[in-house]
Amino acid sequence: MQEVSNSAQVRLNRVSSAYWRVIMNNPPLNLMGPKFVLQFREIMTAIESDAQLRVVVFESAVDGFFLNHADFDTKFEDLTAIPQGPTGLEAWPDILVRLPRAPVVTIAKIRGRATGNGSELTLACDMSFASRERTRLSQWEVAVGMVAGGGPMARLSRQIGRNRALEVLLGSDDIGGELAEAYGYVNRALPDAELDGFVDTLANRISGFDKWAIANTKRLVNAAVSPPDVEIAAGWEACMASVARPTTLARVRAFRELGFHEPGDVEDRMGFYLGRLGR
Amino acid sequence: MQEVSNSAQVRLNRVSSAYWRVIMNNPPLNLMGPKFVLQFREIMTAIESDAQLRVVVFESAVDGFFLNHADFDTKFEDLTAIPQGPTGLEAWPDILVRLPRAPVVTIAKIRGRATGNGSELTLACDMSFASRERTRLSQWEVAVGMVAGGGPMARLSRQIGRNRALEVLLGSDDIGGELAEAYGYVNRALPDAELDGFVDTLANRISGFDKWAIANTKRLVNAAVSPPDVEIAAGWEACMASVARPTTLARVRAFRELGFHEPGDVEDRMGFYLGRLGR
Amino acid sequence: MQEVSNSAQVRLNRVSSAYWRVIMNNPPLNLMGPKFVLQFREIMTAIESDAQLRVVVFESAVDGFFLNHADFDTKFEDLTAIPQGPTGLEAWPDILVRLPRAPVVTIAKIRGRATGNGSELTLACDMSFASRERTRLSQWEVAVGMVAGGGPMARLSRQIGRNRALEVLLGSDDIGGELAEAYGYVNRALPDAELDGFVDTLANRISGFDKWAIANTKRLVNAAVSPPDVEIAAGWEACMASVARPTTLARVRAFRELGFHEPGDVEDRMGFYLGRLGR
Repeated sequence: MQEVSNSAQVRLNRVSSAYWRVIMNNPPLNLMGPKFVLQFREIMTAIESDAQLRVVVFESAVDGFFLNHADFDTKFEDLTAIPQGPTGLEAWPDILVRLPRAPVVTIAKIRGRATGNGSELTLACDMSFASRERTRLSQWEVAVGMVAGGGPMARLSRQIGRNRALEVLLGSDDIGGELAEAYGYVNRALPDAELDGFVDTLANRISGFDKWAIANTKRLVNAAVSPPDVEIAAGWEACMASVARPTTLARVRAFRELGFHEPGDVEDRMGFYLGRLGR
Repeated sequence: MQEVSNSAQVRLNRVSSAYWRVIMNNPPLNLMGPKFVLQFREIMTAIESDAQLRVVVFESAVDGFFLNHADFDTKFEDLTAIPQGPTGLEAWPDILVRLPRAPVVTIAKIRGRATGNGSELTLACDMSFASRERTRLSQWEVAVGMVAGGGPMARLSRQIGRNRALEVLLGSDDIGGELAEAYGYVNRALPDAELDGFVDTLANRISGFDKWAIANTKRLVNAAVSPPDVEIAAGWEACMASVARPTTLARVRAFRELGFHEPGDVEDRMGFYLGRLGR
Repeated sequence: MQEVSNSAQVRLNRVSSAYWRVIMNNPPLNLMGPKFVLQFREIMTAIESDAQLRVVVFESAVDGFFLNHADFDTKFEDLTAIPQGPTGLEAWPDILVRLPRAPVVTIAKIRGRATGNGSELTLACDMSFASRERTRLSQWEVAVGMVAGGGPMARLSRQIGRNRALEVLLGSDDIGGELAEAYGYVNRALPDAELDGFVDTLANRISGFDKWAIANTKRLVNAAVSPPDVEIAAGWEACMASVARPTTLARVRAFRELGFHEPGDVEDRMGFYLGRLGR
């Protein structure tokens, strides 16, 4: 696979043969649309098949946004028309079940908003480290009548317990770095000034470890706590059903009228504004 | 279902069509007996079948006691004679497996002692918020020779991990608000003065969300981490076997002689006194 | 079973008929070899079959080391030649699946390094309390090309969530008392000066409780969250495969050249030195 151009929404940066960075770059809001999924899928395949790779860090090049909700201006059909992946799941959930199984270590480095897809990517990574001051994790879907499609019901509830997962999912509010750490939503929240150094040191450390040992240790952790694919598929199907409902269409439209989907205060403080949506 | 009278042990207070409060009121100790279970079951059915309801808050009207252990002065047979519920489980565990499945959000607002049944109700709710200063959660059963009957072995161990669940269950000690939060036994412990406002704000927020999205999100979380009914049934059966044992009868009798089951220091600091029970 | 002599690597100290201490004593590093496993297995059988016993505390008599990695100077064949235990698993994993099922409460009291086997023993105990200042928990295996053999992939991921378990397992770094508590790796980290008193008070408390209630409560917690034996077996097999790999042999040899396996700075700060191992 060749290096992707700088204009790509998802860029691959090979720090070394054993340590890669995947940089998400779809300004201004780092929304996820069909192009993002296609580019991410290509990188996913490279991650799975590279013989030297040990560790991948996922990060953002867009200030304020790690990875955000779906791009409602792209054609929904362009997303659903992408052929199913090798797992037999649709494109986005296919990526999210391949990532936990990949024979390398995956680390989410979170700065800014990680809403919807950004939270789902975080939960599919092996570890996550977040800026204490600048992180906003959330699953916003229920507030607009949707069900999340990338598996947080399956993963977050296993990771942080039923009660806190339901607070995140049903409250649909923004979760800052400190609370995300207290709940175990991320591994740790670090002072923003220390985040890059911490993750780079850890990734460098792991890049010197043995690939066979990494892969087999992950395999056994997955056997213990990874959800079966059928749960991820069920979540995706519920999401697809939800986006077609008139209630959902009306709520998303009303939210856009408030300022959603444009740079500004609603995207910055989405949790707050979701609570003000009319009923 | 009509509004229950003020003399009831369990009262229903409709804040709005979408937001209800269930108020537990069996002074002075908020013990749980057959009447409580029958009234709670009626409200459970209303919660399940109401088309407008989105969120229910469970709280206490009795100072110092959220919901307490069983009432040993009521006839045990009056409890066991209640017909099995629609799940095929006995009355109390039937309620506790229906609550997590109900298509609405349930929130435990905890002030005072939540021992035995109070802890079990908390664990069956979707979320729980506790007074930092005034919460005493506990599973006291092992200290008197009993096994808990309402599912904490199944739920608490999934929620907070085997080691901390065993500390709670086998140590039989009181757990204050701060430790309960640190362990994830509750979602959060809040300063007592902020608890009502926090829960009311969250409940109001959720009351404006879409019911279909709430129900389907909960359904998928339950698929991931809710225990199978057979585990809850096994817990109930072990509890029933335990209460008939001579050792248990003798320990409960000895505990009553210390002051248990009456307002006073033993009920206030039950964990401490359980450690002083003769062997 | 008769009291084991003071020269034993694992000593049994009966505080009372209901409260025992198991003291691990293989100075200077508290490594685990075949003799340790054989002695531990004998005590395991005593723990399972004693009618009066309620609680067992596991602790170390070796300053700075709770229980450490395998002893690479003993003959590997002496370990693998020990007949399988009653579970059908090999000797060490056999012990580690019998311990969680034993009808008594088991508590790990951790001071010093708990690496590899020490961490695995901790995770197989019902509860663990650690010195805040003097604890170093770790699974070091991946850093030398190994897979851990005593079940941490199965247990740690269920106990603290996939993301934090993978950080521990794949980062192979030392985890201090404070972080171990924050992650739920141990129940609590206590100031070193308070640790003995806290654990002794808890053990004394539980030693007065009813054995039937303890056993049946544990049984139901195990039904909820204990891994199936086949997962533990798979972990052991991956470990055995890993130690035979040339990469692993070379890395362990290089680590010994740095000072590993001898008293000194490498054993004291193993996490740090594992990051400096050549590739």
